Amino acid sequence: MSNQLRLAIDAMGGDLGPRSVVPACISFLLRFDATELQLFGPRTQLELLFKGQPEAIRERLQLVDCEQVVTQACSPVQALRRKRSSSMGQALQAVGEHRADAIVTPGNTGALLALGRNILGTQKGVRRPALGKSLPAVDGTCYLLDLGANIDCSAEDLLQFARMGVEAQSIHSGNLAPLRVALLNVGSEAGKGTEQIRLAGQLLEADSSIHYIGFVEGHDIFTGAADVVVCDGLMGNVAMKSAEGVIRLMGQRAFKIEKRAPFKRFFGQMAIKLLRKWRAQLEPGRYNGASFLGVDGNVIKSHGGASSEAFYRAMCTAKECVEANLAARVGRAMRLHSDKI
Amino acid sequence: MSNQLRLAIDAMGGDLGPRSVVPACISFLLRFDATELQLFGPRTQLELLFKGQPEAIRERLQLVDCEQVVTQACSPVQALRRKRSSSMGQALQAVGEHRADAIVTPGNTGALLALGRNILGTQKGVRRPALGKSLPAVDGTCYLLDLGANIDCSAEDLLQFARMGVEAQSIHSGNLAPLRVALLNVGSEAGKGTEQIRLAGQLLEADSSIHYIGFVEGHDIFTGAADVVVCDGLMGNVAMKSAEGVIRLMGQRAFKIEKRAPFKRFFGQMAIKLLRKWRAQLEPGRYNGASFLGVDGNVIKSHGGASSEAFYRAMCTAKECVEANLAARVGRAMRLHSDKI
Repeated sequence: MSNQLRLAIDAMGGDLGPRSVVPACISFLLRFDATELQLFGPRTQLELLFKGQPEAIRERLQLVDCEQVVTQACSPVQALRRKRSSSMGQALQAVGEHRADAIVTPGNTGALLALGRNILGTQKGVRRPALGKSLPAVDGTCYLLDLGANIDCSAEDLLQFARMGVEAQSIHSGNLAPLRVALLNVGSEAGKGTEQIRLAGQLLEADSSIHYIGFVEGHDIFTGAADVVVCDGLMGNVAMKSAEGVIRLMGQRAFKIEKRAPFKRFFGQMAIKLLRKWRAQLEPGRYNGASFLGVDGNVIKSHGGASSEAFYRAMCTAKECVEANLAARVGRAMRLHSDKI
Repeated sequence: MSNQLRLAIDAMGGDLGPRSVVPACISFLLRFDATELQLFGPRTQLELLFKGQPEAIRERLQLVDCEQVVTQACSPVQALRRKRSSSMGQALQAVGEHRADAIVTPGNTGALLALGRNILGTQKGVRRPALGKSLPAVDGTCYLLDLGANIDCSAEDLLQFARMGVEAQSIHSGNLAPLRVALLNVGSEAGKGTEQIRLAGQLLEADSSIHYIGFVEGHDIFTGAADVVVCDGLMGNVAMKSAEGVIRLMGQRAFKIEKRAPFKRFFGQMAIKLLRKWRAQLEPGRYNGASFLGVDGNVIKSHGGASSEAFYRAMCTAKECVEANLAARVGRAMRLHSDKI
């Protein structure tokens, strides 16, 4: 890492394309002086969006022309075969060749996982990289992983996710006490769940480097019962997206009631103001930016439907990861354990 | 079913014991005239809680003394071996012997599934009974199953869950149009998820009696994208509980902010009143009462931590199921398909 923070930004692949990415980049450059951005995408389109921006911004901005885009329909195999020179592929290469400290992309998750592993490589001792993210919880956050990178996970995989999750959450939470690690299950009793979950529980129990507190249920992600919650990608993805769905539903319901009860408009509007503020604290966008842990580089995945504000948050997550050296820390922790074996 | 609605109520096994169940029973008897309740639990304790209630209530109430209780720690095997004469076991027997139209219990889910299958029997053609429930969605509800009765599910199991879910949701939603059935997955693209989920998709696609719309993700449960969402018990349990967790977190955050900003107290309190009302619409308690589909009788499981109000909701769910003949309808639908094979 140079003195400057250098982020490789994939401008393509999100639902809104560069229209959400570029305003986020402008805000980020305005907010953080010691920052350089490399933007990967079709140059003419990007230049148009940056038109009229002051020199102070443009001098810390490099546009890298990429015509090729990874679409949402692109499979991981297709990405590996044909999309290495896409905006996502070139942004990953910038990280791999140490021309950038991290990549932030709103693109296709499956393609990112495939290209990310292929271009950056997996860190020593890591069986399978995983996607993880901080979610809001009472009095803080809870780190949930895997969010969908791995559908079938062995007990050993889950043990590794726990180790990587602890490194990531120690950065995001700023918590110095040993982080409480739990396994997501359908109940807290010892006999619950699948064979893999129960076996993972035994492995975690036996590992003195992890403060394992047992099984937790879906609601415990948000109660502050644990600092890191570990599960396979199917469960993690469902947990995160169900939570997001409820938050969105909550918003929609509220606005509906406002319209239906005009006599309460005055207090209603006050309430909605507060409600919006409270909801914003829980909004998925606020917690945008999942990390792809276990590859040799900082890879941050933004939500595909992210607004400019949400993409900006993902860039802040990337900044945090680079400043704390997340990839290197995860690598060190995993190497340590693989040396022990 | 006689002219009277007869519910067998397991007063024990919930976190609050009879203290939440009895007030719910009183409200229910006051609200619905043509109702008889059979309450199973320790008679002296129950009698104390009904003390002072008017004759109009007591005459439609029968207390059945059961000393034995199924605790939360009781395993399904222990329940089958030793808990057949517990309050839960006796309430199930009342349904099995047609002395009651449905059972409502806040007790141990694993024990209920084991005792329920054993005492009531599985309906013809049903491979595995499933737990299902209506959850709030934009413009209505969405029926989610399985919620945790079956951890490992084959594609055929998921197909059967879809059939049973359609019967249940057609009652709860009152929707006459063909109900849209979806499979819960980590993405909507055809190649996503496990082998079982993809195979279940093919089976549902091929079944002309089901209006199958494809894969959906966790957030779609709440967007109104589907009327019935089918998954294994691990995913369903995680989806439901994560959603509940977020709703609870939302409440806690709101009350905190109120205290921290005293200068906004006045508008804050107005706002909180409205907020509470809105939240109540989503509260898990409001959607309390999961149905155990595929056994020969109406079995309603209330949340173990249910308040009186939430337990009352579960009783209302039971009433709805009895009036619509849910168990018989599910039985008929499943018999029809098993005859075809």
